[in-house]
Formats: sequence, structure tokens, C-alpha cells
Amino acid sequence: MDFRTDFKPVTVQPQEIEDLSFQMIADELGEHPFTDEQFPVVQRVIHASADFDLGRSLVFHKDAIQSGIAAIRSGKKVVADVQMVQVGISKNRIEKYGGEVKVYISDRDVMEEAKRLNTTRAIISMRKAIKEADGGIYCIGNAPTALLELIRLVKEGEAKPGLIIGMPVGFVSAAESKEELAKLDIPFITNIGRKGGSTVTVAALNAISIMAERLD
Amino acid sequence: MDFRTDFKPVTVQPQEIEDLSFQMIADELGEHPFTDEQFPVVQRVIHASADFDLGRSLVFHKDAIQSGIAAIRSGKKVVADVQMVQVGISKNRIEKYGGEVKVYISDRDVMEEAKRLNTTRAIISMRKAIKEADGGIYCIGNAPTALLELIRLVKEGEAKPGLIIGMPVGFVSAAESKEELAKLDIPFITNIGRKGGSTVTVAALNAISIMAERLD
Repeated sequence: MDFRTDFKPVTVQPQEIEDLSFQMIADELGEHPFTDEQFPVVQRVIHASADFDLGRSLVFHKDAIQSGIAAIRSGKKVVADVQMVQVGISKNRIEKYGGEVKVYISDRDVMEEAKRLNTTRAIISMRKAIKEADGGIYCIGNAPTALLELIRLVKEGEAKPGLIIGMPVGFVSAAESKEELAKLDIPFITNIGRKGGSTVTVAALNAISIMAERLD
Repeated sequence: MDFRTDFKPVTVQPQEIEDLSFQMIADELGEHPFTDEQFPVVQRVIHASADFDLGRSLVFHKDAIQSGIAAIRSGKKVVADVQMVQVGISKNRIEKYGGEVKVYISDRDVMEEAKRLNTTRAIISMRKAIKEADGGIYCIGNAPTALLELIRLVKEGEAKPGLIIGMPVGFVSAAESKEELAKLDIPFITNIGRKGGSTVTVAALNAISIMAERLD
């Protein structure tokens, strides 16, 4: 491939690169336990991480994909735990149905409330999210405390997410928070173990919004 | 750990969680080939990915850490290839020395030039970066084409980066672009293989800015 485009203009088409990558992923993954509607999420997570183990570690609630698609197509909000997740999400496929991608963790009222209660902004941001984005999709790639708080709010009947994509990465509480999520009987996508993070969380959401758009 | 902070306020200190995580990483990693000044970068990359293999795959030019620290402390710019990398970088430790964290890929002039030359915005963004941020730190976590273009500009004597952190993830060109970077005799941090991405690129830069600040 020649990238010396100032001498010999060539088109390096991102879509072609993506198509080729996705074919390589399908070929190398081989047999897997995922359904046809789950597989695009697995594929895009592997695409974003080059990590087949992480892809294989994904766990889906049976209603996850359909409920996520329905939330997007009915214009529900998408909540990101941190700004890296927010900026990574493809906005056009959310906004075309009336939705928005929100992040609350740096809001002034969240910071003040966290200070007042001597707790984390991640926790308070979820309490704000359930008021502002009920029925929406929660994308948590960074903060296990946010995911644990959201799980608590669901259990207490205070939150009814359309979908939780919970894939925080880390050594303290991340794996445990995802195990708790996987016990819920509500739509979720998560993974087993410490791995995860902003990029794979974004990848999972984007995979679903692409599926949503294909129904147009 | 009790996260039901509405009943029993507890402080979940992010710094304590990070300290504990870093100790776990050092313990589990065991023997490794990295120097004392490289190790904090390895540790933070593993912290951001929970991936010891990725941490072990890091490759450092001998001057990488010192040159990166010098660039930050002399107020050079930090260039991110994509917005996810830009928003993840801790700004305060760059701006306190007069630097800025820039991303050019969505600039109007970059988009227009890419269209005119029938090439990618990632490539054109690097051509803009070398004019606006010479001597700075380039953080490339997403676009192999950006890294390949930057390498070309270095080889032709048009770019003199203070440090290149090149860790794009992917199945097409990513591993190859990093192999090319590792052949250069200029300050770089990269890794072997397909893995990488925005979060680990951010982690490497943040590790260096923390080291820079400790010299105050």
C-alpha cells in the first residue's frame, strides 16, 4: 500500500479497511456461541481491541440487542459514564431518531452533590442519569462504581434501562461489577473478567446503532 | 466495599483504588525487561487495559521517556490522532507548562484538503500537525495511516517529534505501522502486534506527564 499520497494519490477507503478487518475477524474467530444478532457486537468489539479473548468473553442478556435497537429507534438517550465514551459514539445514528448522547460526570451539580455526600462523581452521575434518561442506554466503560450504583438503582426499582452496556476495565471492582450485572434479568451486554474499557464499550454501542439504522 | 452511599456514606477514593491496582499489576507482572523510567508507562498501560500481554509488548526507544518529559516541561504541544485520545489526556499536567492538547482530524481545512487529494483526513491531519506542533508529542491510538504518514515525514526530515506514542489497534496496517515506527532512531513508544487503541495511548502519555510533574 502506498501512502505517499503527495506523489501518487491513492484512496485509502476506511470502509474497505473495515470490511476486510471484519472478514478477518470472522475467519479467525471460527466457531463461537453467539447468535446472528449478537455477532456484529462481538465482531466490532474485537475490531476495536484486536482481542479475541475479550470478544469471546462477552455475555448478552437474551433481550439485549432488540431492546437496544428499540431504545435507539424510539429516540431514547444514550448515557456515557465518561467523556471518552461519549466522544467515541457515532452521534448521527442516535440523533437521527431524536436521541442524544449524554455524559453527566463533569456537570456542576454532580460535582457539588458528590462533594456534599463525600462520594464519587461516577455514582452521583448515575443518579442524575436515571432522572434524565430513563429507558435509555447506559454505556459504562470506565467506572465500576457507576455500574454498581446503576445495578443498585435497578434492583430498587428506580431505574428501568433500555439496555446497559457495562464493560468497565480494571483491577478493583471491575470484574465484580460485571458479575453483578450479569445476574440481572434486564437487557445487558457485559463481559467476564477485568478487561473492557471505553473503546470496546463504544464499539458495542455503535454495533447496535448500525443494526438499528439497517431497519430503516 | 459498600457502595450504598445514600445509607452509609463512604469515601471511595479513586487514588486509593489506583494505588491498589498498581500494586497488583507490579506483583502479577513479576520479572520484566523494562527500566525504572519505562516501568510507570507499562504499569499504566496495563491498568488501562487489564492486559499483561499488551503491557509486555511495549517497546521503547532509549530516549523516549526523557524526551517526552522534556517536551512536556518545555510547553510543547501534544497532538492526538482522534478526539477520544484528546479527551482522555489529563490536560492540567500539559497546560501548566504552557502546552496544549490538539486534534486536527476534524478541522475544516483538513477535511477539505483530504477531499481535494482524495486521501484520508488522518493523513492530512499529520501534515497539519507537523506545521503547528513541531517538537511536540504525537499520540496515535487509532489511525495506522496517520502513523505511517508521520513516519514518512520523519524520514524525509519534515518532522522532528519530541516523542511519538504510536499504538494504533487493528487488523489492517496497525501492526505493520508499529514495526516501521520501531525502526526509527527517534524517541518513540510503541507495541508489537495488533493490539493498542485510544485508552492505552492515553495511558502512556498520562504516565509521562505524571513523571514530568514529579520533577517540579
